[in-house]
Amino acid sequence: MEASLAELKQRLAEITDLGRAQYVLAWDMDVWMPPSGASARAAQLATLEAVVHERQVDDRIGELLDELEPYAKSLPEDSDDACLIRVARRNWERLRRIPTELAAKLAKIQAESHHAWVKAREESDFSAFRPWLEQVIELRRRYIECFAPYDDPYDVLLDDYEEGTRTVDVRAVFARLEPELTALVAEHAAEANEDDFMTGSYPVDAQEALSRELIERFGATWDAFRLDRTVHPFETTFGLGDIRLTTRYSDDDFQSLFTAMHECGHGLYERGISPSLERTPLCRGASYALHESQSRLWENIVGRSLPFWRWFYPRVQESFPGELGSVSLERFHRAVNRARRSFIRVDADETSYGLHIMLRFELEQELVSGRLAVKDLPEAWSSRFRELVGLEVPNDRLGVLQDAHWSGGSLGYFPTYLLGSVLSVQIWEKARETITDVDEQIERGDFSELHGWLRENLYALGSKFTPQETIERVVGGPIDPEPYLRYLREKLRALATA
Amino acid sequence: MEASLAELKQRLAEITDLGRAQYVLAWDMDVWMPPSGASARAAQLATLEAVVHERQVDDRIGELLDELEPYAKSLPEDSDDACLIRVARRNWERLRRIPTELAAKLAKIQAESHHAWVKAREESDFSAFRPWLEQVIELRRRYIECFAPYDDPYDVLLDDYEEGTRTVDVRAVFARLEPELTALVAEHAAEANEDDFMTGSYPVDAQEALSRELIERFGATWDAFRLDRTVHPFETTFGLGDIRLTTRYSDDDFQSLFTAMHECGHGLYERGISPSLERTPLCRGASYALHESQSRLWENIVGRSLPFWRWFYPRVQESFPGELGSVSLERFHRAVNRARRSFIRVDADETSYGLHIMLRFELEQELVSGRLAVKDLPEAWSSRFRELVGLEVPNDRLGVLQDAHWSGGSLGYFPTYLLGSVLSVQIWEKARETITDVDEQIERGDFSELHGWLRENLYALGSKFTPQETIERVVGGPIDPEPYLRYLREKLRALATA
Repeated sequence: MEASLAELKQRLAEITDLGRAQYVLAWDMDVWMPPSGASARAAQLATLEAVVHERQVDDRIGELLDELEPYAKSLPEDSDDACLIRVARRNWERLRRIPTELAAKLAKIQAESHHAWVKAREESDFSAFRPWLEQVIELRRRYIECFAPYDDPYDVLLDDYEEGTRTVDVRAVFARLEPELTALVAEHAAEANEDDFMTGSYPVDAQEALSRELIERFGATWDAFRLDRTVHPFETTFGLGDIRLTTRYSDDDFQSLFTAMHECGHGLYERGISPSLERTPLCRGASYALHESQSRLWENIVGRSLPFWRWFYPRVQESFPGELGSVSLERFHRAVNRARRSFIRVDADETSYGLHIMLRFELEQELVSGRLAVKDLPEAWSSRFRELVGLEVPNDRLGVLQDAHWSGGSLGYFPTYLLGSVLSVQIWEKARETITDVDEQIERGDFSELHGWLRENLYALGSKFTPQETIERVVGGPIDPEPYLRYLREKLRALATA
Repeated sequence: MEASLAELKQRLAEITDLGRAQYVLAWDMDVWMPPSGASARAAQLATLEAVVHERQVDDRIGELLDELEPYAKSLPEDSDDACLIRVARRNWERLRRIPTELAAKLAKIQAESHHAWVKAREESDFSAFRPWLEQVIELRRRYIECFAPYDDPYDVLLDDYEEGTRTVDVRAVFARLEPELTALVAEHAAEANEDDFMTGSYPVDAQEALSRELIERFGATWDAFRLDRTVHPFETTFGLGDIRLTTRYSDDDFQSLFTAMHECGHGLYERGISPSLERTPLCRGASYALHESQSRLWENIVGRSLPFWRWFYPRVQESFPGELGSVSLERFHRAVNRARRSFIRVDADETSYGLHIMLRFELEQELVSGRLAVKDLPEAWSSRFRELVGLEVPNDRLGVLQDAHWSGGSLGYFPTYLLGSVLSVQIWEKARETITDVDEQIERGDFSELHGWLRENLYALGSKFTPQETIERVVGGPIDPEPYLRYLREKLRALATA
């Protein structure tokens, strides 16, 4: 039994190593790779994917899991080993359904397609990206068929990001949110140019210095974190001591501060996973929505709050005296929280953000089911965007080409962003029950107790438990859109009457 | 036959991909990785090494090679396929001798040991690095035993860098060079402070701009090259369209210009390999000495010549007017060519450089044979350095800890640097026979014909042929120290009488 467990752990550790090697190659591809390196890199990623997949689905893992079944049953359900065996079995059974050849093709097309997307986005030309997206969708359909029978083809995709969450569950949450968010946007949306200082001259060096200062204060340390630049910001983990955040800067706004706090939230989650789970499949956040709950918690609930800006706004004013010297704290705080109609999801305010997600959730389902052809996607995007957000999309760059996800084959990912926003408020309210003076702490720039609570109650668990169990453990109940709606309503009301 | 060839090529392509994935991880480790990432990275490199090794020694490759033997014999000897099959057989037979477990251990210890070296070097403390080096040497001895019987244990190490070159061959070349180089240094070595402008205030940004300008002019293009910073500069290839150069800057000298030209020479070699060899084991320089011949050719023969500085010195003066505004071209040219006694190999002038190599060549042989214990290495270094170069080594940082090679397990590598210097002059003289006005071209900052000649006659070949065959093809004879000695003597004489 001990030998089997050791062998299983060794195999899983090696699979983790190889997966992280893929992350390193993908990160380099986005951050540093010169363009002529694309085809060789695509080949490397495809080969690595084939190697990883082959090892993941090795018969021997199934044998070891069978041998270890009695041992697992003898353990407390929440022990590391019991959780490891459960997750390893789920992964193995799931991946056994995907032919190695399909996995390699997906990895290769996604790398190439990503490169095509970068170029198409620069040129705001969907037609250049269309053939790639068609291939991605086609391969994703083949992927879905590996999991037949299913209730909804989209369930299969969702399950890669949110184990056990079904399309109908998401629809239920979103159906509750849609009319409320639409009404809030209608009631509170800013007039054009109301907050003129939101664009201006914001030198990138100063933004980078502020970003670094913020994530240090939140609890990131440079012995284990990096912050680099990419077209599309993300967080990736090469080891519990090697967390890579990426961000982007524009010299005419200061959105990068929120991007840095967002990616830092992801990074703190990963960095906080119990070291006992290193090099195991439990060594990651419990789900994409839970991950997003942490990026959103740090970016929005903390990072757009009045106590936070009471602490940090003077530093920002110092850095941009020409633009913000005469802008009051209250005006600034209102501007960074105001509901607005806008084109770009990642720059959207908290209230309208959900509408951007619903759009993608609907279009993805239609693409996958075949109800929508890729060639008709830009038009469908425009038409649905008009209904949801109330704006005319002027070009592909500000519309259908804005996100990297589809180019990377990530369908089923978007809804987790909004589920994460919903969860972030539930988790925040729970943390507040214990840390009753958290607002005062934040106003002093002290985030250590909050960070500690989150680490202890959520981060350390890694993915030992299912998303549902994890949520239950942290907040004492299931996902619930009401606290999120209440939070938005109260915030917008306070801003309106301030 | 066709199916076997296709399968062999596919397997070799995947091995190439995985090897390049290792390079990406190693490059990131040196260029960007935060320190707490070291242990996870070491595990990733070890796992990848095991995967690569397993694939390299797969029985199936031997079967395919046997099946393809008649086909290979039917081909012209210099055809890509015949060369591929020859090199694949050599690699397979060689690697079959190394147990997978030993290969993985070597990869892991080398990654960890490299990290220990970086720290020990910073602190100039050999004792902190000693236990790591002891393990490296021990594993290297086990490696050597895999190739028993051998004439000289060092032959085994050398063969990894210079196929077919034996320790006695190196000794013969070095024995011819040693008294001559010693005499040249004794005759021409500069007095202290003679070239006081060699140190001064040289802002790093300006050095970087000049480095980039130079390598662009040499023929590197940014769609396929990068230049980043590391402790120890190197070149690494992720694909024929993805060449990574690294360099280092010190704000009190301008050595970085020579480092950039040096690494660029390596990069141009790799970038010039025939695209038909991409993703095969032929897709690399023919040997380490031939590689070094190109870094040395661009750095020294071109980059320290009077025609070169007639072209480029005004640009350097413009960048550093305070330090160099009143230094004449002749004085500058003499200074960057002058023989000097110094501690650091990579900063050494062309003449004394060989003595630094001989030191390492001797110590490596003694370490490997056991005649020298690791604990006695600093003392042996100091004593032999005194004899060869005539200086007292003041500390480990300026002595035994200066190079990264041993920490990475690279024993047998150093002699190729001097062999490369020797070859660089032979190749240069051959190129000059065709491009009779190369000096005039260089004086105009035009390197295209030289680059073209080298690409056509050397770079494009990759490692289709053995080092000896490649040398024969390019210069029409074997390695010969006489042109190198003549080159040094003439240069130093001209400087002395200028």
